[in-house]
Order: sequence, then structure tokens, then C-alpha cells
Amino acid sequence: MGNSFGKLFKITTFGESHGQGIGVVLDGCPAGLAINSDLIQFQLDRRKPGQSRITTQRNEPDQFQILSGVFEGKSTGTPIAMVIWNKDARGKDYSHIADKFRPSHADFTYQEKYGIRDYRGGGRSSARETAARVAAGAIAMHLLSGYGIEIRSYVSQVGEIKLNLPFQQLDLKQIEDNIVRCPHAETAQTMIDHIDAIRKSGDSIGGIVTGVLTGVPVGLGEPVFDKLHAQLGNAMLGINAVKGFEYGSGFEGVKMKGSEHNDQFEKQGDKIVTTSNYSGGIQGGISNGQDIYFNVAFKPVATIMKDQNSIDKSGLPTVVKGKGRHDPCVVPRAVPIVDAMAALVLADCILLNKSIKL
Amino acid sequence: MGNSFGKLFKITTFGESHGQGIGVVLDGCPAGLAINSDLIQFQLDRRKPGQSRITTQRNEPDQFQILSGVFEGKSTGTPIAMVIWNKDARGKDYSHIADKFRPSHADFTYQEKYGIRDYRGGGRSSARETAARVAAGAIAMHLLSGYGIEIRSYVSQVGEIKLNLPFQQLDLKQIEDNIVRCPHAETAQTMIDHIDAIRKSGDSIGGIVTGVLTGVPVGLGEPVFDKLHAQLGNAMLGINAVKGFEYGSGFEGVKMKGSEHNDQFEKQGDKIVTTSNYSGGIQGGISNGQDIYFNVAFKPVATIMKDQNSIDKSGLPTVVKGKGRHDPCVVPRAVPIVDAMAALVLADCILLNKSIKL
Amino acid sequence: MGNSFGKLFKITTFGESHGQGIGVVLDGCPAGLAINSDLIQFQLDRRKPGQSRITTQRNEPDQFQILSGVFEGKSTGTPIAMVIWNKDARGKDYSHIADKFRPSHADFTYQEKYGIRDYRGGGRSSARETAARVAAGAIAMHLLSGYGIEIRSYVSQVGEIKLNLPFQQLDLKQIEDNIVRCPHAETAQTMIDHIDAIRKSGDSIGGIVTGVLTGVPVGLGEPVFDKLHAQLGNAMLGINAVKGFEYGSGFEGVKMKGSEHNDQFEKQGDKIVTTSNYSGGIQGGISNGQDIYFNVAFKPVATIMKDQNSIDKSGLPTVVKGKGRHDPCVVPRAVPIVDAMAALVLADCILLNKSIKL
Amino acid sequence: MGNSFGKLFKITTFGESHGQGIGVVLDGCPAGLAINSDLIQFQLDRRKPGQSRITTQRNEPDQFQILSGVFEGKSTGTPIAMVIWNKDARGKDYSHIADKFRPSHADFTYQEKYGIRDYRGGGRSSARETAARVAAGAIAMHLLSGYGIEIRSYVSQVGEIKLNLPFQQLDLKQIEDNIVRCPHAETAQTMIDHIDAIRKSGDSIGGIVTGVLTGVPVGLGEPVFDKLHAQLGNAMLGINAVKGFEYGSGFEGVKMKGSEHNDQFEKQGDKIVTTSNYSGGIQGGISNGQDIYFNVAFKPVATIMKDQNSIDKSGLPTVVKGKGRHDPCVVPRAVPIVDAMAALVLADCILLNKSIKL
Repeated sequence: MGNSFGKLFKITTFGESHGQGIGVVLDGCPAGLAINSDLIQFQLDRRKPGQSRITTQRNEPDQFQILSGVFEGKSTGTPIAMVIWNKDARGKDYSHIADKFRPSHADFTYQEKYGIRDYRGGGRSSARETAARVAAGAIAMHLLSGYGIEIRSYVSQVGEIKLNLPFQQLDLKQIEDNIVRCPHAETAQTMIDHIDAIRKSGDSIGGIVTGVLTGVPVGLGEPVFDKLHAQLGNAMLGINAVKGFEYGSGFEGVKMKGSEHNDQFEKQGDKIVTTSNYSGGIQGGISNGQDIYFNVAFKPVATIMKDQNSIDKSGLPTVVKGKGRHDPCVVPRAVPIVDAMAALVLADCILLNKSIKL
Repeated sequence: MGNSFGKLFKITTFGESHGQGIGVVLDGCPAGLAINSDLIQFQLDRRKPGQSRITTQRNEPDQFQILSGVFEGKSTGTPIAMVIWNKDARGKDYSHIADKFRPSHADFTYQEKYGIRDYRGGGRSSARETAARVAAGAIAMHLLSGYGIEIRSYVSQVGEIKLNLPFQQLDLKQIEDNIVRCPHAETAQTMIDHIDAIRKSGDSIGGIVTGVLTGVPVGLGEPVFDKLHAQLGNAMLGINAVKGFEYGSGFEGVKMKGSEHNDQFEKQGDKIVTTSNYSGGIQGGISNGQDIYFNVAFKPVATIMKDQNSIDKSGLPTVVKGKGRHDPCVVPRAVPIVDAMAALVLADCILLNKSIKL
Repeated sequence: MGNSFGKLFKITTFGESHGQGIGVVLDGCPAGLAINSDLIQFQLDRRKPGQSRITTQRNEPDQFQILSGVFEGKSTGTPIAMVIWNKDARGKDYSHIADKFRPSHADFTYQEKYGIRDYRGGGRSSARETAARVAAGAIAMHLLSGYGIEIRSYVSQVGEIKLNLPFQQLDLKQIEDNIVRCPHAETAQTMIDHIDAIRKSGDSIGGIVTGVLTGVPVGLGEPVFDKLHAQLGNAMLGINAVKGFEYGSGFEGVKMKGSEHNDQFEKQGDKIVTTSNYSGGIQGGISNGQDIYFNVAFKPVATIMKDQNSIDKSGLPTVVKGKGRHDPCVVPRAVPIVDAMAALVLADCILLNKSIKL
Repeated sequence: MGNSFGKLFKITTFGESHGQGIGVVLDGCPAGLAINSDLIQFQLDRRKPGQSRITTQRNEPDQFQILSGVFEGKSTGTPIAMVIWNKDARGKDYSHIADKFRPSHADFTYQEKYGIRDYRGGGRSSARETAARVAAGAIAMHLLSGYGIEIRSYVSQVGEIKLNLPFQQLDLKQIEDNIVRCPHAETAQTMIDHIDAIRKSGDSIGGIVTGVLTGVPVGLGEPVFDKLHAQLGNAMLGINAVKGFEYGSGFEGVKMKGSEHNDQFEKQGDKIVTTSNYSGGIQGGISNGQDIYFNVAFKPVATIMKDQNSIDKSGLPTVVKGKGRHDPCVVPRAVPIVDAMAALVLADCILLNKSIKL
């Protein structure tokens, strides 16, 4: 269970890292939407392995095939199924860990929960599954662009290296200008150098992705359990390796007083705005028309090129060898995944909101 | 929409701050569970207003009435409906804000989303709604205790005042020993004094609640979208005033290397454990049998006793007077809400997990 | 589980026959809808016991109380909770069957499924639960009237007495003109006399309710699993004592040839219509703008005034005495329930359909 | 929407008649179940076109490919995706109806609902979609066989030709002995001859499939909205061309008196049984351990080899030519579909029932 996401704009994903492929069924995409293959492939390319020297060297073109739901270039209102076939699967490379539990991976918990697991590259627990979300998210993004909504995430921290400027002082068009996806050239270079050094040492490092959603209309999100930020948090915490989520003032906001933190309303022209935005564009769980921004914390990747002590299925001590292909830092490739999950949340909210007024 | 939570152990809440009352329907509680009124009332008392000098002075006994689903003291498998009648509702006290948007409240977003709102005490957006969750959560907690699971949350930060000890070094039985619910007497007193000063100044302050779940069996949580920590995050972000959620190493973990962060497995007696617990008891979205711990960030309460500039429904500038009853700091009363939401998540996972093996 | 119905216009019901009362939470009602108490009470009065000599004599006024979700006479977009308090509950009247399984009742299956049951009047299995649906259905009906949709059900068969005219040849405004709710005076009188005779003999009899939905726009219903007729069938089969559902040509249609059964399209003025309507207003699971009509079969009520052989909880033979209050024929009171369930289905489809086009 | 079925044992289907293929994602299959390809192919072969002279002559091998969720021959608890590639798609054969609305097909309603449609063989509205359900249903059947449950459906009526024996007097092992799937050789031959004659005349005819579920444990089904028979009815009404559903005494039962219709309990050995079974194995929406039986009415197929009057997209009169490949009577191929949908319902109920007791 737990392989579906969304209420009206709803995806179900399937597939394993070293099986036939990764796929998604998108049910609820409105009919008549142009399905632009280039946009989908662009997002998949941002996520695909082997895209730069600071990512895993697994060689996957990550081209997708549409199986259904599109006719003469447009969505028909029926389920859109897409598959990304695995081309560089090397299941046998994992035979040495078939009976071992890699530290901080899902090997142990899958084995205990299900009594069986596909150990090849982590099987279903591999972040390769997120390719399916990125494909569906690209369609969501295209839908949202029709509403004037833009989604832009970027890397704001790698290890201790932190971009100390708020998003308003950055040029978010520069995100794709470097391989780490940090829209600040100098900081980006420092991050890249750091990841490079980490990679060479056979280790890994964590990081933070900051998401910024602009043009979101007032009224998205539900007031009690499906608050917009709860939906976003749920979406982000569902990405592999994520350890935390905060929006608006976040964890820093706890130190503030109400008189400092409250965002005052004022009218600017025809529009009601707030003069500050500690709320992060969401009040009472519902978007208020201001920019939405949030941070997503990613842990260091569990796969490292060092030998580690662990146990095997029978409980005996063993050593897990440091080998295979992996990302030394997940955040550069996590950016399009954060984008995709944010898009899926907003597309669902947009559709759901159509039912709320007479 | 968005007033239901859970898949199998599922609640739907209803009610407004100054309407008839607050209620909940719990569908999916297993049959034959003893429904202990004292346990439910105990949790409601922990959340109720007016419990100490650092909480709002609204005078609500918060006694509950069971309307259905219980026969001869036990659950019957049919929906358990409970109502907490509002006794100290003073809707008229809010007529001065009927047409004004209070800063950082949900007044504006509700008005825009629905075109209508119950302005009395925030209506449905009031944290009074959480009383319903606490009542249902108490039943979940009782269910979980039969599985050996214990849920204990506490206040770990108020404004800048931070309890700098990890939960393992605290005696969590001391949580109820003081009115701020911090299990460290000295820090608690500093927090209480600080909240008192904030209250006297007519302001408010934020804080952090730390949750600790012990005795959780291996295998809870789903591997992709309904990861256990995503469910917990979703639950916590659905509580009023929450701005962030992190578990295990959380945001601090991004600075670590994989070789430091990975939790090694070893066998201790019959049990497989990890020698460190940066994973926070969850790996690949599934509980691994270690303690689960997380932090929940609460912003300063938006209601303050100071006049604030804002606008009214027609967009004209106005002043929102600082009056009414409110909490200067929400975290002492948030503790039982965090407990309740965690319990609802775990109860749902426990039931869902029964279907996963043949 | 299974106490909720609908996706966007969604109800959850609770309550037992001889407990505190029966209630419903309606989540997803669009904001700004006038909530007309008279309309709700009118429908409840059509369903309430004791309304005529051919229904059960239990004396319940079935007045409802709104607990939430309505402000200044309008829906606010938040959950609308309603309770109908039990006034004439006589739980003790059922002590003689506390340990016995009444034939063709739910006593045995509840006991086996849950290991516990509220035996008083059947507890949750009593058709008294449907009062909650009727209250919510009245709101749905009011919503639908704004779209020009009318829902009219009537009794078309009691035992062997069958109204042999199609609905097009009846004046459906006459439904409320007699106590059996058959819009054909002569047939109605025969039915009433028959039910009266059955009642005097201490027995019960089955019947059929025919539903007619007019003014339904083209496009409601989903094409695969949630076909409009599947939703209607699911709704009707969820009413107590229902044994069958058919729409359009139904079971008789199996005898026809395609060349006879196919409904030809033609344009009449601006409207596309079909020259016959064996499809029952639904093609491919989606409404086509023609009248929707269906039949719902109700079995004879299981409670009769005759002694019956059965067994008790320990498996020993016993006699179930014929006593208590009951309906000799359920269909007159089932009419408003069929209306309500049809309204709930259509309201949900109307809301869901808003999301399907860009 | 509406392309998913089930709560815990949940399928999502995709694909069109003349697109790339038809597929299904099964989420929630318990881990460790042997996935037997032969059993799946056996059921697909029962449904596939061209299997006999009384079915459509479209030539599809209907071989399936498993894309995910199976490892070393067993389910892993992750989604099982399966695709049946279209081999004999001839989309161009349908260009003559690209702008026409075929009578009693879904052409008009799809066009109006979505504003776009894949006209090739009806696109998503084709019964070819049910191949996906049959594949998933075969896995459900295998799961159920472990609980001792058997599902056997058969053709009981074709046009006016009715098998007048109750299922108890038939040998259900003979279902596959003839091409019409009626377990009574003599009646089967009459049916076959009749369908043959209908086929030669270019027409079509309706029929009834009777389903029999044996070995179902007591306790499946939910008491209010998800009654077992409502779930079965919903499942069957979701099959293409179905017009009605009845279970147990069904529509005939309305003529009976309660004293005749009530099923008396008695103990036979260790087992509690009923001496008659008008309840059809379900009481109060929950299985009672007796055989479950039901009838499903199928209309005559809308595609016929005769010219028919209709209109085109612009509303002008036109003639729909009688050509293409079609089934003269759908029931022989509907048998495995009824089996599959019944299996999906029961598998879901089995899993759901595990959560109901402590």
C-alpha cells in the first residue's frame, strides 16, 4: 500500500531499481491538456543519473514511453500510464548483499515487514522510483503554468555550506546554470568542490533543497487535516532520504514574538498582500496569494564506498563492502523531485478547489 | 473537505469554536476494546483551556459525551461519535472583527476560499477543533498500549530557551510535573517565567514539542508515499500553528557525512538493534524497532493583546484591537495534541499492517 | 469501516437504533448553500416511523439538530454535523433476544464478525440509521435543484401487486397523495389493503421502489469503476433489505436484440436526444441527458409477529417470539431513502465533474 | 477518475482498445504469495477474443507481461504492474466513426464529458479494458483459494433461453465444457445455436451470468455502506454492458412473505447454518457462511452488423455502417470477468477483516 498520491490529480507508481522499469499511472488529469513530451523529458533529464561528475554514474537515458490516456497529443481524461524502462540494470552486482542489511538502508525493514525483498539496488526502496513522480509532475507543472503558477526549487545547503540569502534576493532563473542547482554562482562552486571532495573520499554528505512557489492563487489547501503545508510536508517527507520540512519562518520562527511574526495585511492596487511573509504564503492551511517557500532536509546518502559493520539475515556479524554506483550528495538530483512533488500537490488542490463553491 | 484522517482507524471531526460544540466520529476502531472514559477525560484535561496561568482563561470543562459505538463499556466495531459541548462560547465578543482580517489568522483565507466564514473565535480554524482529535487519540493510545507502545511528548523549547539534553537523558515521567510540560525542572521554570513575562507584555512566543514513541514494532509505515515519518509529519503539520517537522537527525543531519550518520546493525540477545539512532527509528519509511523521535515547531500565537494594523473585507485600512482570551504560548497545551496525532498515526499503521502478510 | 459514502460530497453516519441517537457528518458541501431546515424536516417526516397505519408504530418525531457547519443560515464549507436524538428508545424490550439470533437479521453475522453486538433493536443494523442519510440527502437535493435536477421515487410493486405503467405515463406529483407512495390511486389502494392484511396476519411482504431522475446534465459518472449506474447501484444496495438493482431495460433487456435495444440519437432543436431510452439515461457509465430510471427490490421485513425457530449464542435451539414494533412492508418508508441516496450520488458526481475539464 | 477499485487489495487499470495495450497496477497484494503465470494466463484465455465461433474474431493472444512487484516468483508487497500489449489493433478501421455517435455506445457521452475522445474501437470504453481486471482477479483468486474460497460463474440465460435449475442442482465443474459456459449440456447447445443464428443475422442478444461463491467465511463485508452485496453489485455494475444485479432471492423475493423468506438458523455438527438460503449467504451486509449467489444482467451488445441512423458531432443526421468485429453475445466471455470482479471484492474484504478485531 501507499503507492498512490493525490485525491483528484492522482498518481500510482510502480517498479524497482533493477526490474523491468519504473512507471506511473496518472488518473484524473483533466481532458484536453497538451501532453508535451519535451517538457516531460526535460524534467527526467534533470533527475537522471550520470548527468554530471557529482552524481551517480549509472547510465540510464530515462526515456519514457506513454502507454495510454493521450490521443492526438492531448490528454483524454482517462489514465495516463508512462513507463521508463531500466536499461542499465545490473541486478547481479548486488548478490553480495542479498543476505546482508546495509546500514541506514531499507534492507532490514523491508525484510521484516514483508518477509521477502528484492535486494537488487534496494528494489522498490531505491530513489529510482522517483523518476515516475518526475514524469507525472511534469504534466502537473504544465497544467499549473496555465494558472500562472511557477515552481522553482534549488539547493540552498550542502553539508555546512549554506547559501545565506533569502530566495527574494536570488535570480531563480540561474538554477540550471550549474550542476549543483544553486542559483548563486560562488556558493555553487564551493558546494561542487565540497561534493567532489566527499566523493573522492568515498563518503556522502547531506543538504537542503528550498522550494519556492509563485503565482499560487488564494484558497488552495484544506483547513484541518489537509492543510496546504501539511500536504506539501507529506509530499516532501515521502521523498527518499528526507529528514525534515519547514515552511515560512519554520524552526527559526519559534524564537519570535507574535508581534514580530504576524504578517500585516494591506491593499496594494487591487490586490490584498501582506507586508511581511513569515506565514510562507499559507494561513490557516490555505494559500493567501503570497509566495510559498519551504526547506527540505536530506540526510547523507546511506551508500558509501567504505566498508561497514552490519549483520546478515541470520543475525551474524558481517561486513558490507563499499562498492557500487551512488550519489555522494543527493540534493542536485533532488531538485526536480521536489519540483515534481510540489506540482502534484498544487495540481490536486487546484482541481479540488473547483468543488468548494456553488 | 480534509476533515478526515486515517485509512482504517479513521476520524472525521466537526465543530467550531463558538458553535454548539466540537465532535469526532471514529470509524474503524476494532471491536471489543474497553473504552475508558477516565483515560479520555485525562487527555482532554491536559489540553483544556484555563488549566494554568500560562494558558488562555477561557473556561471550558471539556467534558465529552459518547453518542454511539460503545456498548456495555466496549467498542462494538461501529462508529464511535463523541461531542464536547461548548460551554463558555461568547460569539458576540467577536463582533468587532466580523469584517476585519486579523494578521496571520485564517480570517482572510477562509473568506476568500469560501466566500463566507464563521468569524466567532475563528470558527473552524480555532485550535479548539483539536479537542476532538485528543478524544479520539486517547482511544488510539489505549489500543496501542496493548501492543506495548508508549507515546510521550514534551516541550523542548520556548522562544530562545532550549532544553539541550536528548530525550534519552530525560525522565519522561516528569512531563506532567510542571505546567509547561518540560521534563527538566530547572528549564521548565525558566520557560514558565518567560511565558509569564510574554503574557504580561500582551505578546506571544513560539516553541518546540519533541515527540518520543517507544515500543513501536518493526514494520509500521508504507515504503513510498505513506512513509511512517511522512504520516507523522502530515499529522503534525495538520496541527494549528505548526511550521516545521523533523525526525531523527533532522535538519542538523544535513551537515553530517554518511560514514558518521549511518546506523550500524548489531544483534543484542534476540533483538536486532542499531548502535546509533540518527535514523530516528525509521528506515525506508518503515519503523525499525528503535525509538522514534521528532520535533514539531510551533509559531507564536497570532492573537496578541496589542493593536495591529490590517484591512477589512472591503479592503480599507483598519485597526484590530488587542482583546479577547488567548494562549501566550501554545506548546504546553500542544503536548497532548502531538500525543494524540502520533497515536492516531500508529493505530492506523498497526491495523494496516495486519493485511500485508498472508 | 464502511460508514462513509461519497468522494467530494461525503457523508459519515453514526448511531444505533436504541442508543443516544443517529447522526451524520457531511464534509464537502459547497459553501454558501442555504440550509433549509424545513426541507430537511420534510424528508425526515416522510421516512419517520408512525406516519401511517401501514408503518411501524414506534413514536419518533425525528427532529434534527445541526451541530456545526452552518452560519447565518448558510453552509460555510466546513463539516455539517446533524443529530436525530432517539426519543422512544426501549432497549429493554429487546432483552429477550440478547442471546438469540433472529432469522434473516444481522444478529448472527454481527456477533461473529465483531465478537460483540448491541442487540437493542438491531443496534447499528437497524434501518433507523437511514434517517441520517435522509437528512444529508435533503441538503444534496437542495443543491441539485439549483442545477435543475429532480429526484422522484415511488412504490411500483408490493408483493404480487405491480403498477404496470412506465414512469412516463404517471403523474409523479401524486406520489405523496397516498400513504403507500404509489402515484396511481387505484393501484395504491390495492397495495394499502394488501399491506394492511399482511400486517393483521403478523407477517411482512416485499416490494419495489422505482427511481426517476430528471434534468440530469450530460457527463455525470466515471467511465470504468465508478460508472453512474454502478454508483447508484452501490447506493441502493447499501439500503437495508435491498436485494436487487436494475436500471434502464434491466433484467428484461437481456431478452432483446441489439437492433431493438439500441437507442438512436437525433437532434431535437438544440438538444441531442435518443428516440428510445433502453439505456436508462446512462451510456458507457455516463449520463446522456435523458431521464435516468431504475428499480430497487426490497425483501419482506425479517421481523414478523410469528414465533420462529432459531438458535442462541451457545448454539442451542430456541424460539424467537413474534413481538415488538415493525413495518409490515418497508417500501413506503423506503421511498425517501432511495431519493436521498440518489441525491447523494448525483451531488458527488456534480462536484467531481468540475475537475474533469481544464 | 474512477479507474481504481478496492481499498486494501486495490487495482488501477489503464489502456485503450487500440492503443499500446491494457494494463493494471495491483497495490496491496500481501507479500509472499506465489504468482502463478499459468493461472493468470488461463483466466486471460477464457476472456480473450477469438476463442470460439460465437465470440469476436479480433485476434489477440492476450499474453501478459509482469513489470514489477514479483521477485523470484513471489509477490514482494510492492505494486504488481502487468501489461497486455495490443497486437491486433486496427485503429484505422474506425476512421469512419471518428465523428459519429454510435447508438448505445459511449461515443456521445465521452465526447460531451471530456470534449475529446479516442474513437478507435471505443478507446477506454471498450470491454477490452476488462482484460486488466481478469489478470489481477486471477491473483485474487489464488489468494482466496488459500482460504478455501471458490468462485464459479456461468451463463444461466441467453435471450429467452433460460437455465431453469438452481445452482445447487448443477455440476459447476462443467462450466468450461462448452463454449457458452453453461454447465448444462443441453441448454448450452440451445444457447450456442441461438447465438450462432443471431450472429449470422448481424444482430446481438443479451444474457445473464450467475455467480456462485462457496467457502466464504462468516464476517466479510461492512454493515452500512460497504455491505458485501453492495460491493459485489458495484463490482458487477462496473462491467461493460451490465444492466442489473440481484443476489439471493433477488427481484423474485419481493413477492414473498417474511414467514416464507426468513432463513432459520440451526446447528449442524460444529457449524451454524441456515435451513434455507434466500439471504444469498449475506445478512446485514455481512457473509453468514452459506453460499453466496447472484445474477448479473447483460444487455445485447451495441455493435451490430446493420446500418443504424444516428447523428455526427455537428448534430447532422448520418448512418452508422454495420461493420467491424464484435461479439454477438457478451456473456460467454463475461464469465471470467464476473469471476475476476468477485475475486477482487472478496480479497479486499478478507484483508479488511483482519483489522476489525483486536
